[in-house]
Amino acid sequence: MKDKILDILKRHYGKWISGERICRDLNISRTAVWKKINALKEEGYEIETKHHMGYRLVRIPDLLLPYEIKSSLDTKYIGREVVYYDSIDSTNDAAKELAERGREHGTVVVAEKQTRGKGRMGRRWVSKACKDVLFSVILYPKIGLAQIAQINMLAVVAVAEALERDFGVKSGIKWPNDLLIDAKKVCGVLLEISAEADCVRYVVLGIGINVNSDESDWPNEIVDRTTSLKLVMGENVSRVKVIRAVLEELELWYEKWRALGFEPILRKWRTWCVSQKRCATVKTLEGEYNGWIEGVNDEGALILRLDDGTKKVFLSADVSLRSI
Amino acid sequence: MKDKILDILKRHYGKWISGERICRDLNISRTAVWKKINALKEEGYEIETKHHMGYRLVRIPDLLLPYEIKSSLDTKYIGREVVYYDSIDSTNDAAKELAERGREHGTVVVAEKQTRGKGRMGRRWVSKACKDVLFSVILYPKIGLAQIAQINMLAVVAVAEALERDFGVKSGIKWPNDLLIDAKKVCGVLLEISAEADCVRYVVLGIGINVNSDESDWPNEIVDRTTSLKLVMGENVSRVKVIRAVLEELELWYEKWRALGFEPILRKWRTWCVSQKRCATVKTLEGEYNGWIEGVNDEGALILRLDDGTKKVFLSADVSLRSI
Repeated sequence: MKDKILDILKRHYGKWISGERICRDLNISRTAVWKKINALKEEGYEIETKHHMGYRLVRIPDLLLPYEIKSSLDTKYIGREVVYYDSIDSTNDAAKELAERGREHGTVVVAEKQTRGKGRMGRRWVSKACKDVLFSVILYPKIGLAQIAQINMLAVVAVAEALERDFGVKSGIKWPNDLLIDAKKVCGVLLEISAEADCVRYVVLGIGINVNSDESDWPNEIVDRTTSLKLVMGENVSRVKVIRAVLEELELWYEKWRALGFEPILRKWRTWCVSQKRCATVKTLEGEYNGWIEGVNDEGALILRLDDGTKKVFLSADVSLRSI
Repeated sequence: MKDKILDILKRHYGKWISGERICRDLNISRTAVWKKINALKEEGYEIETKHHMGYRLVRIPDLLLPYEIKSSLDTKYIGREVVYYDSIDSTNDAAKELAERGREHGTVVVAEKQTRGKGRMGRRWVSKACKDVLFSVILYPKIGLAQIAQINMLAVVAVAEALERDFGVKSGIKWPNDLLIDAKKVCGVLLEISAEADCVRYVVLGIGINVNSDESDWPNEIVDRTTSLKLVMGENVSRVKVIRAVLEELELWYEKWRALGFEPILRKWRTWCVSQKRCATVKTLEGEYNGWIEGVNDEGALILRLDDGTKKVFLSADVSLRSI
């Protein structure tokens, strides 16, 4: 009912609409309307109330509220269910719990704030409340473990495409799944899976995009290599528009992947990639390697030509690009 | 303290030992001794008590109690921590929770009874209380997803070796990780993992071995293709001896794998395998295939020669062997 009232208010955005009219349209009592309006106000909607005039919506908060995300979202399953948290330890952890209980394919878990945000390899993901876009998608792909890295690459392609499509922002992919603008990180992906030895049970795809945060929001040690859409575009960006664009591109590329396999994903990934034909230091559990990035093979693994001329293939590693 | 008293009783198995002597040896009060003895009785130890004589241990229950498993267990890390449940939904689920909280490498979760035992691909694993050996091992291998199937094959090799070593039982491996005796299943392995896109966070290796169960314990639909060590050997088998042997072999093969890689595991797996050079029906999510099993490739994947002569490789599937 709350979202129906919100719909009406939005259709009359900035204009007065009487409580009586809302009651009539929705066939509910004035008290019910009043209660729901108050609930919307608590969520951050600015709604003016005036005797004899009724209600007037004057500002929609830039929060990642389910009805804001779902309104005019052009997808079939990704984001049709949105689980919203004001604050949570980690959207990936919450999504994993929901996946254990079998929540629908495409369910999105979103939070204004993460208190224990996770990055790759046990690292932290730091962000201020209500500034960035942090969410996780539950997926149940019918694949083997060998294909998991493909979803990782699919995801970063989707974000790159979404940023260009709706915001005109050109970013670059750093292997395997960081998105950079001017060599600074604007987006990271953390894919977690639960699986048996030979089949994937579920995938949780966590995506963090720096939207309206800036230098003062980041820890000193990352401030030099971090950026946000706001910094790039010079103005605040609608977080809801960002997440909607990304969810739409995600479904689009997920469908393409299901229909045509990894090849079109990899091709697009390569066009966005900025970490090919570059000098780099590659760190793994076994050691550190310096060399020249030749590119990625057909499985998406990184091919590094070492300084002694031999080639080494990495499925998992940390890459630092170097200037020559 | 309880296990110290148990040690003393075991050293005097079948003979009387005075409470006073135990008090003195362990420097505790008679009441403390009496309380611990009662606790041991509750766990199933048969301990006689007699005025002026003291205590006498006359029977050790064949339960998978931590001190029974650990006593004379020849391993460095597998089974040095044992978490025991009288009854639990699934040892794998319990182990996964413990792994999320970072419990030590090699921790074993064991239960006398599972109320919601799991098999591969979402199936059930049915067993009666206190008859079989059901346990899960937490491991943190530093590997990529591509190597996960290797642990699966390592595990079944370890069980096959343990059954031969300590019980003289010859079993056969059915791809990927079932253990058969006379074409009937005696052991199954359910490996579950939590991972990021490119690295494994933890592995939970669930092993179920039919030890003292028999036809009357199994559902009708599996009774024809299920067996137990008791049925094969014609007598009850010590469950503690079974789990100890398996834990020891597991560590042995895990170490071999870490030191020498997959090749020795695969070689041993092949010598135990009974599902090579056989007619089989292979079911996957995509369909059903009939053919001749050529063997497994170097990654452990099943190679099936279809009836039309082409070869197909399976990473994940359900195999039914057929007689010609």
